[in-house]
Amino acid sequence: MHIKSIVLLIFILVEMSVAQVFEVVSPNNILSLSFNVESGVPVYQVTRFGRPLIVSSKLGLILNNDIDFSSDCTVSSIERNYVDNTWTQVWGEKKEIRNCYHELKVVLVKNNQHQSRINIYFRVFNDGIAFRYCIPKQDNLKEFQILDEITEFNMAADHNAWWIPAYHWNRYEYLYKKTTISQMDTVHTPVTFETENGIYLSIHEAALTDYASMTIIPDNNFKLKADLVPWADGIKVYAETPFKSPWRSIQIADTPGELITSYIILNLNEPCKLRDTSWIRPGKYVGIWWEMHLGTSTWGSGELHGATTENTKRYIDFASKYGFSGVLVEGWNIGWDGDWIANSEKFDFITPYPDFDIDIITQYAKDKGVRLIGHHETAKGIHNYEDQMTDAYKFYKKYGVRSVKTGYVGHGQDIRRIDSNGIESKEWHHGQWMVRHYRKSVKKAAKYKLMIDAHEPIKATGIRRTYPNIMTREGARGQEFNAWSADGGNPPEHTTILPFTRLLGGPMDFTPGIFDLIFNDARPNNRVNTTLMKQLALYVILYSPLQMAADLPENYLNRLDAFQFIMDVPVDWQDTQVLHAKIGDYVTIVRKDINSPDWYLGSITDEEGRNLQASLQFLDVGKKYVAQIYCDGQNADWKDMPYEYEIKEILVDSHSKIDLRLAPGGGQAIRFKLAEEKDIVRLAYIQ
Amino acid sequence: MHIKSIVLLIFILVEMSVAQVFEVVSPNNILSLSFNVESGVPVYQVTRFGRPLIVSSKLGLILNNDIDFSSDCTVSSIERNYVDNTWTQVWGEKKEIRNCYHELKVVLVKNNQHQSRINIYFRVFNDGIAFRYCIPKQDNLKEFQILDEITEFNMAADHNAWWIPAYHWNRYEYLYKKTTISQMDTVHTPVTFETENGIYLSIHEAALTDYASMTIIPDNNFKLKADLVPWADGIKVYAETPFKSPWRSIQIADTPGELITSYIILNLNEPCKLRDTSWIRPGKYVGIWWEMHLGTSTWGSGELHGATTENTKRYIDFASKYGFSGVLVEGWNIGWDGDWIANSEKFDFITPYPDFDIDIITQYAKDKGVRLIGHHETAKGIHNYEDQMTDAYKFYKKYGVRSVKTGYVGHGQDIRRIDSNGIESKEWHHGQWMVRHYRKSVKKAAKYKLMIDAHEPIKATGIRRTYPNIMTREGARGQEFNAWSADGGNPPEHTTILPFTRLLGGPMDFTPGIFDLIFNDARPNNRVNTTLMKQLALYVILYSPLQMAADLPENYLNRLDAFQFIMDVPVDWQDTQVLHAKIGDYVTIVRKDINSPDWYLGSITDEEGRNLQASLQFLDVGKKYVAQIYCDGQNADWKDMPYEYEIKEILVDSHSKIDLRLAPGGGQAIRFKLAEEKDIVRLAYIQ
Repeated sequence: MHIKSIVLLIFILVEMSVAQVFEVVSPNNILSLSFNVESGVPVYQVTRFGRPLIVSSKLGLILNNDIDFSSDCTVSSIERNYVDNTWTQVWGEKKEIRNCYHELKVVLVKNNQHQSRINIYFRVFNDGIAFRYCIPKQDNLKEFQILDEITEFNMAADHNAWWIPAYHWNRYEYLYKKTTISQMDTVHTPVTFETENGIYLSIHEAALTDYASMTIIPDNNFKLKADLVPWADGIKVYAETPFKSPWRSIQIADTPGELITSYIILNLNEPCKLRDTSWIRPGKYVGIWWEMHLGTSTWGSGELHGATTENTKRYIDFASKYGFSGVLVEGWNIGWDGDWIANSEKFDFITPYPDFDIDIITQYAKDKGVRLIGHHETAKGIHNYEDQMTDAYKFYKKYGVRSVKTGYVGHGQDIRRIDSNGIESKEWHHGQWMVRHYRKSVKKAAKYKLMIDAHEPIKATGIRRTYPNIMTREGARGQEFNAWSADGGNPPEHTTILPFTRLLGGPMDFTPGIFDLIFNDARPNNRVNTTLMKQLALYVILYSPLQMAADLPENYLNRLDAFQFIMDVPVDWQDTQVLHAKIGDYVTIVRKDINSPDWYLGSITDEEGRNLQASLQFLDVGKKYVAQIYCDGQNADWKDMPYEYEIKEILVDSHSKIDLRLAPGGGQAIRFKLAEEKDIVRLAYIQ
Repeated sequence: MHIKSIVLLIFILVEMSVAQVFEVVSPNNILSLSFNVESGVPVYQVTRFGRPLIVSSKLGLILNNDIDFSSDCTVSSIERNYVDNTWTQVWGEKKEIRNCYHELKVVLVKNNQHQSRINIYFRVFNDGIAFRYCIPKQDNLKEFQILDEITEFNMAADHNAWWIPAYHWNRYEYLYKKTTISQMDTVHTPVTFETENGIYLSIHEAALTDYASMTIIPDNNFKLKADLVPWADGIKVYAETPFKSPWRSIQIADTPGELITSYIILNLNEPCKLRDTSWIRPGKYVGIWWEMHLGTSTWGSGELHGATTENTKRYIDFASKYGFSGVLVEGWNIGWDGDWIANSEKFDFITPYPDFDIDIITQYAKDKGVRLIGHHETAKGIHNYEDQMTDAYKFYKKYGVRSVKTGYVGHGQDIRRIDSNGIESKEWHHGQWMVRHYRKSVKKAAKYKLMIDAHEPIKATGIRRTYPNIMTREGARGQEFNAWSADGGNPPEHTTILPFTRLLGGPMDFTPGIFDLIFNDARPNNRVNTTLMKQLALYVILYSPLQMAADLPENYLNRLDAFQFIMDVPVDWQDTQVLHAKIGDYVTIVRKDINSPDWYLGSITDEEGRNLQASLQFLDVGKKYVAQIYCDGQNADWKDMPYEYEIKEILVDSHSKIDLRLAPGGGQAIRFKLAEEKDIVRLAYIQ
């Protein structure tokens, strides 16, 4: 991986007077973070154009042994640093990422017997701020426990917020709510805010690798406080020096679209640690999955078993014919029969069901140029999974499998853990123990050259920069809710909120592309609440380096004209731009293919129809492109007429404007293909 | 004036069944208006993408003699019509205006003795809908009175609204409020709405020439009803057949910016009625005006009299040297001494004060290539003004005056009227009598080749298309409030609301360009609540064909570098585009000069600082331009540092992007001047 770095280090070591305020400004001088110690309490605030955005907010960690880094502290020294470099993603929504910020390192000393030390690093970017706690090696502080993190993010006013609740800390699969802060529950991050004057903020964390997940508790007066998901014993984090917390980040933008093209979360993670990344390949896949969600086949064995050799061959044939690199098969291994959630220890990750002949299947796939995508449902049986992990990954490696979808389904709020003394406890899904497990899985998978697609995951915090084999994950209500959820599935606005909340953390395996939107035979009380064209647009809107064509092959064969877009759309991009963005209403994103001069556009709306104009200024100047337009028909409507669509080609260039007519609950997808001479002859030129 | 017309007329005459619903769709098939008669009551509704936008709303006029056209009606026949033509403005924000709509004419018959008839015309454009009432010639209905107009605009939900109150019907000089409809007062039009899903609507009227002004009363359940400003006797309108009401219009847009570039109001007015328009010339002016608002000189005679020959010559010198075509002089004529509002009949429109030698002044101006701009303050003494109108206009014509600023200042809610029988009454500012007066003034002025700039006017309803000598008007809180209003002047957000409300009616003589923003000597309790750069940006944001440089010459001489933009900025445009728009937050507009290839950009923000990116795709492809940038300085802030600014030049083309850094309460102005070879050599090329 090529990294261009221009790093300017300025070290300033000064003896500090207690009352001093230390300011760090963004490179463009718009944001300013100031830090000071008020009566022993470390606090920070953020202003934008000189106006308060984050008002005085406490900082600090409370450790065991009465080491309370949130009081009785003094500044011992500071360092300043300016960084401006550009690095290259192994894969992603944008190839070259600029990392440009001013940094302030504050060395704090606790006024106790041992003069315990903690460092806080602040980074101020043009598009937000971040900070982390580091506890350096020091005498008398080696192993320690974090009892509480008292980080605050105190807002200047009662902003609007888009959030999902974090009451049970178990999963992220809720519909986003929009309320004021004062009406907010305890929430997961990313949580996104809109000020009265139309400034957008999103609080999240970066580089969560060995720490508890941060949730956010609102208090009076729009105060927000970090709340860490604890271990069973109530301790938040077990750690030792030298120690680094995850980064706490606030993305700040003038428009919602700028949140999407802000790469702070990635920049705050460490560079790639894998020497060889040549085996990491974004791709598209189909699989034996939706049919189980519809209930027409089963994960478990028996007459309706989906994961049979024959059925898998059918999907391999389809994948091969239409250019998909992977075939996911769920329910292939022993453990799915009976109450598999209650009996998660029965999952056997190296023994297929007898009707799934993995030798034949993988040879068949190889002959057809397709790879099997592995599947490991743990049902939260972590010990069972970790015990088999090495064998399981070796097993897949042997069969040429390159990607594994992992799963952590479970009803409860807790996960069974047995410590080294054999003592059992129940851990939360998002506590430090599970964070460690998810990281272990990614690192071990890398050893066996496996890419991971985690479902019911820990949230995305940019780890993909460091371990680019963690490709994508779930962590929100995906397509599957449309198959069976009792609340009628995802409403049309759901996917117009995800890009500004969940997706700010990283890619999501939403599994778009359902073509048979109404499945009365299988699930009469459910349906997909979009037009067909919106399903296409989601491939551009919801970024994932592994992207599924989630429907059954026969449903694609019925509409090969529309399916062409799914066949064409890339999963790795040179660049990403946001043309229109209104959280919960609509969003238009264009992305440039990494391997060709082609651009792709996705535009989606909520239940309201739209007529948005897209300027094609992103196209290369002076070149002509064939716009292959997949748009809702004149009378299309997600409710009554989701299948009415039109596919047409026109010739455009960078000065063209296109009207995006989006039906209620609809969308539009466009491929801009560099025009050849014959296209120019064939098509009339429109401006 | 050249008008290209492609008019397609389709007449359909059908016998109607009572229950039938008649639908008209917009040319792009997104909006649909349907009309029907429900139990004798004419009603309409509007849908957008099939979803209700205006729910069932009553129509009708109630006349005297028990002719109630809002009940007991039946449809006698309909006609349909499709129009698509493009016409040319004499001057304006865009040269060529497309007028494209579907029309439905409904002939309604009242079930009374004489089978009274009324026609309703509906027009559905891509960007909104409109309708008007017409009462054709018919036996037994000649002269009539309108007792009530019961037009409703019933909204589908409790939208946000930006409005000014219409309680006293006297002026429009209020700060706009943003509330939900349920918290709205009775309001003036244009009143602008934002739906929960981000659709924008604005209700207004077009072609108000001989009718009462329409205000809007909210009722329960977001019902809105037209409320006409009555005559003193309670009658709303006096009329005779054949009769046409003004158009009731609803502009409908996906984005706030599209409200600004919607030309429905103009399209609903009749084509230009003036044969010769060569004398109608947009222009910029300075004048003896701001000094009176600051109180450093007076309108009335005496030591501080502003309108002296000497002072006027000083302004003429300044205007001539810096390229202004006009010099406004207020307080030049007899009538200003004492309580001029109470004694409006004392205004003499042909007799200057002795220290204002109009012969010398106009000759001096002529020699310098400048024209005097006339001033007629009526103080609502309508009879006094109308008695002198012919002489007053002749007087100005004789002296080469081409523009007259009229004024209708008054404390009260009523205007003294004496009818032909000598009976006195008090009329409202916005009732039919005053509407007629304003129209009379415009028509008579045209006869004497005078352009009108009306202050305390009747609202703009697009009459400028028909009589392009009504150039501009006030009709909102303008700059003058910053000089003396007890509430601290216009807050920074005021000018970010005006383009989406007041300005939708037509041009406004806001009088921007105050450079001395803090005038502690003159008015210690007041100031202008913007940065200096925002004053420049207002020349592009707030369109007016007569645009004042409102400050004192000496204040411009102090900052000639910034003044250059005011000297350069045109007042007549080939085209207008909106780059960014958020009502009450920020707006960026670009306009192309009618006389050159140059473009001008204005961008303003409210009290919040912004960093907005402008794509320069509007520039001509393949050409290079010098961007002359007038921007807020790094530390600028309307409150503490309004004078910090930077002026710089860079070379750009249609693929460039520019960061618009707007300070809190700030703005940015840019001239894009077609680059000459020497500019390209001189300036580095940036992309």
